[in-house]
Amino acid sequence: MSMTMSEKILAKASGKDKVEAGEIVMANIDIAMIHDLTGPLAVEGFEEIGTGKVWDKDKVVIPFDHQVPADSITAANNHIFMRKFAKEQNITNFYDVNQGVCHQVLPEMGHIRPGEVVVGCDSHTCTHGALGAFATGIGSTDMSMVLSTGKLWFKVPETIRFNITGDLKENTSAKDVILHIIGKMRADGATYKACEFVGDTIENMSISDRMVFSNMTVEMGGKVGLCEADEKTKEYLNGRTDKPYEIFKTDKDANYETVDIDVSDLDPQIACPNHVDNVKDASEVSKHVDQVFLGSCTNGRIEDMRDAAEILKGHKIAKGTRMLVIPASREVYSKCLDEGLIKIFVDAGALVTNPCCGPCLGGHVGLIGPGEVSLSTSNRNFKGRQGSPDGEVYLSSAKVAAASAIKGEISLPDN
Amino acid sequence: MSMTMSEKILAKASGKDKVEAGEIVMANIDIAMIHDLTGPLAVEGFEEIGTGKVWDKDKVVIPFDHQVPADSITAANNHIFMRKFAKEQNITNFYDVNQGVCHQVLPEMGHIRPGEVVVGCDSHTCTHGALGAFATGIGSTDMSMVLSTGKLWFKVPETIRFNITGDLKENTSAKDVILHIIGKMRADGATYKACEFVGDTIENMSISDRMVFSNMTVEMGGKVGLCEADEKTKEYLNGRTDKPYEIFKTDKDANYETVDIDVSDLDPQIACPNHVDNVKDASEVSKHVDQVFLGSCTNGRIEDMRDAAEILKGHKIAKGTRMLVIPASREVYSKCLDEGLIKIFVDAGALVTNPCCGPCLGGHVGLIGPGEVSLSTSNRNFKGRQGSPDGEVYLSSAKVAAASAIKGEISLPDN
Repeated sequence: MSMTMSEKILAKASGKDKVEAGEIVMANIDIAMIHDLTGPLAVEGFEEIGTGKVWDKDKVVIPFDHQVPADSITAANNHIFMRKFAKEQNITNFYDVNQGVCHQVLPEMGHIRPGEVVVGCDSHTCTHGALGAFATGIGSTDMSMVLSTGKLWFKVPETIRFNITGDLKENTSAKDVILHIIGKMRADGATYKACEFVGDTIENMSISDRMVFSNMTVEMGGKVGLCEADEKTKEYLNGRTDKPYEIFKTDKDANYETVDIDVSDLDPQIACPNHVDNVKDASEVSKHVDQVFLGSCTNGRIEDMRDAAEILKGHKIAKGTRMLVIPASREVYSKCLDEGLIKIFVDAGALVTNPCCGPCLGGHVGLIGPGEVSLSTSNRNFKGRQGSPDGEVYLSSAKVAAASAIKGEISLPDN
Repeated sequence: MSMTMSEKILAKASGKDKVEAGEIVMANIDIAMIHDLTGPLAVEGFEEIGTGKVWDKDKVVIPFDHQVPADSITAANNHIFMRKFAKEQNITNFYDVNQGVCHQVLPEMGHIRPGEVVVGCDSHTCTHGALGAFATGIGSTDMSMVLSTGKLWFKVPETIRFNITGDLKENTSAKDVILHIIGKMRADGATYKACEFVGDTIENMSISDRMVFSNMTVEMGGKVGLCEADEKTKEYLNGRTDKPYEIFKTDKDANYETVDIDVSDLDPQIACPNHVDNVKDASEVSKHVDQVFLGSCTNGRIEDMRDAAEILKGHKIAKGTRMLVIPASREVYSKCLDEGLIKIFVDAGALVTNPCCGPCLGGHVGLIGPGEVSLSTSNRNFKGRQGSPDGEVYLSSAKVAAASAIKGEISLPDN
């Protein structure tokens, strides 16, 4: 009865004793997330199906984050539509424009637990695997079915266990490790795989750092990106959720592939245009940057803000470079205020906005024009991702972003 | 040789001993302001004229404020275009996306002095009259000529002196007084007039409060809105500018109309949709508000932030209402941080963005949808001004805005 973590979660969710990779299961959904941008389409589909009420008003979570505050009448209309839906359906967990990025808000507000199945109408829903949940992004049509029935079919994924070992160098972070892995695996190297991140490097990491791994799993095609829940997970969940949960771990003799990665010598990495898997040592890349973006569901957490503030403190952002800082949630923003980090950013010349997705998706906050270069702590650098298709996006850690903002070009921290 | 303040400033600027209302003068411009939205058109005209260099690189001020950070590729292109212009022309005073709203940035950064002529490609350039400057908004074509020659023709305006007397009630503010005046004068009541705001009420006011009067002068058609420079003005300018300036005051026997206004009994006012002169006692208006906006060149200063924070402290914004707080500049934002005001706003549930024009102009930050109601501390409530033409905009002071955010409907402060 040996199974991987994903198999165990899907077996439980589908009421089976055992499932194996390749099998199709119909799983009960524990949490379904729709946001302001993808929500309306899912809701329209739900209304067409015609069940009237969502299957469980406590299990649907609606955060607004992509177009907040509304940047157009279209966005305002979407918000009105989703507010009306949330009210009509008496949705327990609705977060209006002031709460933050969905993938940060869900764990913060206690909606993510180990061993549960989480689906969201957003490709980076896999972020929640950091807490040991089987979490994945789905399309709006699938979501219409989930809203109606609380169930969704899955092909049980095969598993790759990334066994990550070694102490990180001072300026190397979780982001550098996952970029390194994606560079090796390539964008399609883990297609539909359940990726597990284990080993002493991961064990020593904070939940925030683990979220970076899970978040970017989809950039190598992964279906889910899982970390094993441990004491740190329990500590994170303590006070956020009082619903009981079950922790699953992959059996040693289960069926999985292993990839061993020693990160002891890893230097800061950078993903170069226009693909996330175009990864190089940051020290090898020399490039003027017009805009630096610190934020997103990848690196907009308090640890990232601290990392950047430590480097920016007492420095000014280079002339000819602008820096956007967007804490991922109200909780992160509030902590930044308490710790004096916002002041450090503003004194350095950065522009701090309300928690939102920012330029990550090329929405309405800080787009780049033709010929401009963005260095971003977010997760995607596809052509045109942050504005003009004739602009370029590089991806890095918060530390490299801060150091580069000061120098005006892609740079490593000084020390 | 009796003259009004405006006549004296225009006489000096045109090299004459005396000018009088109705006369056409060619005035030397002391400061010319173009921003990210109106700048490109003015620059294109300037390039067509073909002088090559602007008349004085120290007298052109370029702040970015309307679309910051860039909300579209078009905006990013405008920014690139204006940055290139500023660099080519070696413009001394160029403020990129992180500085704030033009009408706040210009006085803060020491570009406004009494007795000078200031033109800007923005209708609320009249704000700077609060420091005793002849300041007015002009079109992009006129600005092309100013950039080329440093000169512009004016018809010397007739003058109305608003003699404002009496102590304000506790919850009545400068905004309420100017709304009251506009309600009486109507939107065209001061067309092309130089409006002077004098009397003990104005003398007792801070520079910030005086700016509210000057800012909204254009809403009754005024060409300029002037306050007499005094010790408070000198104190404000001290440390901001070291360029000498001359203070002009209207001679008692000059040619002007006087309007006497006693504000001792004035209660908080509100401008109702869809015209700024549709002014009522706020206590008479009962209306649910979907969005409250604290900010803009009218009421985004530190005093407004303090007024609102005092009311919001320890309270939560009503369910069903959202609040946007946008400090008018980096200086204001920074003071808010130092005084703990941002924390109060965030704790109350408000969304705080980077300094910018915000929803005032219906740009890209916090637009309202059809059927929605905005209560705004800004200066215009025309149909569609903040988004959908089927939405409604009410205008009030910062205090009324804060009290209304807590109640979820237009309300007066409790005390």
